[in-house]
Amino acid sequence: MLIDGKAIAAQIQEELKLKISHIKARKPCLAVIIVGNNPASKIYVDRKTKACAEVGILSIRQELPASTSEQTLIQSIKQLNNNADVDGILIQLPLPAHINPLKITQIIDPAKDVDGLHPSNIGKLMSGDQSAFIPCTPLGVKELLERSEIDVASKHVLVIGRSNLVGKPMAAILMQSAAGGNATVTIAHSRTNNLKELSLMADILIVAIGQAKKITADMVKKGSIIIDVGINKIEDPTRKSGYQLVGDVDFENVKEKCSLITPVPGGVGPMTIAMLLSNTLKSYLQRNTDAC
Amino acid sequence: MLIDGKAIAAQIQEELKLKISHIKARKPCLAVIIVGNNPASKIYVDRKTKACAEVGILSIRQELPASTSEQTLIQSIKQLNNNADVDGILIQLPLPAHINPLKITQIIDPAKDVDGLHPSNIGKLMSGDQSAFIPCTPLGVKELLERSEIDVASKHVLVIGRSNLVGKPMAAILMQSAAGGNATVTIAHSRTNNLKELSLMADILIVAIGQAKKITADMVKKGSIIIDVGINKIEDPTRKSGYQLVGDVDFENVKEKCSLITPVPGGVGPMTIAMLLSNTLKSYLQRNTDAC
Repeated sequence: MLIDGKAIAAQIQEELKLKISHIKARKPCLAVIIVGNNPASKIYVDRKTKACAEVGILSIRQELPASTSEQTLIQSIKQLNNNADVDGILIQLPLPAHINPLKITQIIDPAKDVDGLHPSNIGKLMSGDQSAFIPCTPLGVKELLERSEIDVASKHVLVIGRSNLVGKPMAAILMQSAAGGNATVTIAHSRTNNLKELSLMADILIVAIGQAKKITADMVKKGSIIIDVGINKIEDPTRKSGYQLVGDVDFENVKEKCSLITPVPGGVGPMTIAMLLSNTLKSYLQRNTDAC
Repeated sequence: MLIDGKAIAAQIQEELKLKISHIKARKPCLAVIIVGNNPASKIYVDRKTKACAEVGILSIRQELPASTSEQTLIQSIKQLNNNADVDGILIQLPLPAHINPLKITQIIDPAKDVDGLHPSNIGKLMSGDQSAFIPCTPLGVKELLERSEIDVASKHVLVIGRSNLVGKPMAAILMQSAAGGNATVTIAHSRTNNLKELSLMADILIVAIGQAKKITADMVKKGSIIIDVGINKIEDPTRKSGYQLVGDVDFENVKEKCSLITPVPGGVGPMTIAMLLSNTLKSYLQRNTDAC
């Protein structure tokens, strides 16, 4: 059975749209900064601002040249920090090589950090503080599981991949003593020796390693639940584009063995944008406690 | 074989003493605030200030009455934040019930947060930022493993317990792509169903659940390494005091099966104070980059 991320994300966006329509004061506003001319980045930012418009979130888009200095970028962020009409700030990654993304992440006001990458938000997530902004992709996985009525409590969940954007915050969410948590969590990565032994034990697999079809059917327990965060381009001469998008999981073979699986595309991907919108509304509501 | 935490902590304190003796400028200074008259807290604070004196760290001790308001405590912390001669600030826990410890933790300047409990330090730890202050007990376990020449990389480490003080930061340390990390980490807790299955798999067990002798020999893989963070009082009529201190691990039986084990007392406990001193020196050095 498929977990239809596209449908669930659409439902969340409808709910957000309804909530935002009830706001009588200033509407929530997301500011996006994009540095340089990365075509993929532009497509992502287009999708995000389009999704904002669909649910009634205002958006501001700042396009800065690739030559922008770190100092200039920091000034732009500080202006947005100080702008009371801006609720969420997102710096589209990747940044040009001369800019340190870790430093930039720490400049954003934690109260407007809708990407959840500021250390204080990561720390709040890890401590179980519900005011934390949580990175959109792992938050999307949490929401996908909850809305598919999959209770992770007491389940053994294997997170494969330990990036700051996905694997680590995903593990942090799952280990909390809170709704959507209480799982027994194992985090595996490139240095793990016994991956197959672990994956065969897991009730739920969450895979975010960025390697096409790496998780094969022989690695999966019968009846388990598979969340595939990967999006990889592989050559496909039968298609006009010359490529197809596949996940980190060998979907065709694994789907026969597991009970539930997310497709790629149409699984976790659409949830990420829905969570960005959700975080922007959360930021608005936390900053304007008497707005509604 | 025993891992002698007392000897390793003494060695670390000797190293710190030597480093601090070379500081020609103002010596590092730790400020400790204790609220109320909890006798155990007073004993802990005595030990900490005594250890400071032994290695050449100055200490300031503020004793506030149990009736102190949250606002007054916050003011005291802010004064220490602003005092350039104070490098580390420690609020002895537990606090009286009318004071919210989570709120207090967030008032301490992260640059002086030698207990590593401020969200921004937890977030930095989780993101792999080496400037993070790490809570003293899990940092002590890391140091104990390293100085015992136990390489955790690619080992399967089971952390039992998910407190903010021990279990969660311990898991965060072990999963990093850094020295002392690169382990495959499982975090188990009260909601875990298959604890014995997991503990029998683990190469290294780190136990912090606060239940006397809970981990028994039948739960432990032959040749594994056991770190016991627990300190529990149990009745012992044969002793003058009427009690003895035991760990979370059934030491007498487990020691025959594992390859290395920490005793209680004399294992992790002494490392915690050594790491508090080490964090205070780290704070001093990060705040005074040209002091030495």
